[in-house]
Amino acid sequence: VPNVEKAVHKSKLSGFIIDCNTRDLNASAQFWGQALGMPVRELSVDEADDYKRLVDDQHGLHIEVQSVTHPSRVHLDIETDDIEAEVTRLEALGAKRVRAIKRWVVMEAPTGHRFCVVQASSAGFDSVATRWP
Amino acid sequence: VPNVEKAVHKSKLSGFIIDCNTRDLNASAQFWGQALGMPVRELSVDEADDYKRLVDDQHGLHIEVQSVTHPSRVHLDIETDDIEAEVTRLEALGAKRVRAIKRWVVMEAPTGHRFCVVQASSAGFDSVATRWP
Repeated sequence: VPNVEKAVHKSKLSGFIIDCNTRDLNASAQFWGQALGMPVRELSVDEADDYKRLVDDQHGLHIEVQSVTHPSRVHLDIETDDIEAEVTRLEALGAKRVRAIKRWVVMEAPTGHRFCVVQASSAGFDSVATRWP
Repeated sequence: VPNVEKAVHKSKLSGFIIDCNTRDLNASAQFWGQALGMPVRELSVDEADDYKRLVDDQHGLHIEVQSVTHPSRVHLDIETDDIEAEVTRLEALGAKRVRAIKRWVVMEAPTGHRFCVVQASSAGFDSVATRWP
């Protein structure tokens, strides 16, 4: 029987990035790791200068501390199995596409918040994510 | 046998508040609820003007959308069974106490981010939170 269903995709909150306007990424990551009770994990060589991971075994979120040159802020990440379909869905809700970077897309919400749409990577994604028809 | 252990307290990430510089809280909450795939829940009368809850059955986070007069941002909440002990712990890590509001304390991280220390309320708190000796 051929699959005649309309294409669907899925998405959910991935976690958040703590953007820190700092030259001392290590100190920033140590503070947030201690503040949240989460171990700090080093990332691979191509990411190590800008990012450190906070391991969240409590909620399964993807959390990173990032060194940035803009003012400090927290931005949310949405993970999806189809970035283009998800960006299009969010545009229909009023968000704007800001730019594509490597493997993700930066967007701006109608509320003014920047956030990113990233490839799904969390363990519970398939069972927990919302299906968008 | 008397309990001679030193007092401990516990804390963990509670979730985050999406602070929106808007006069239309309803539209902001609808956007974020749809963006994240989370139902929007009305809060009680004393909170309804400023806050709406996003129900996160995916990760068990406490997420709210708040109407604010400062620029839009996302701020993290840390929940604890002992606010004063937790604020003192965070001060020792370099955070500053900004002010107490109702039942919570606003702090500023050494990275410049504002965040709040709130009373523990999540279902998994006792089993998941970090014990601080």
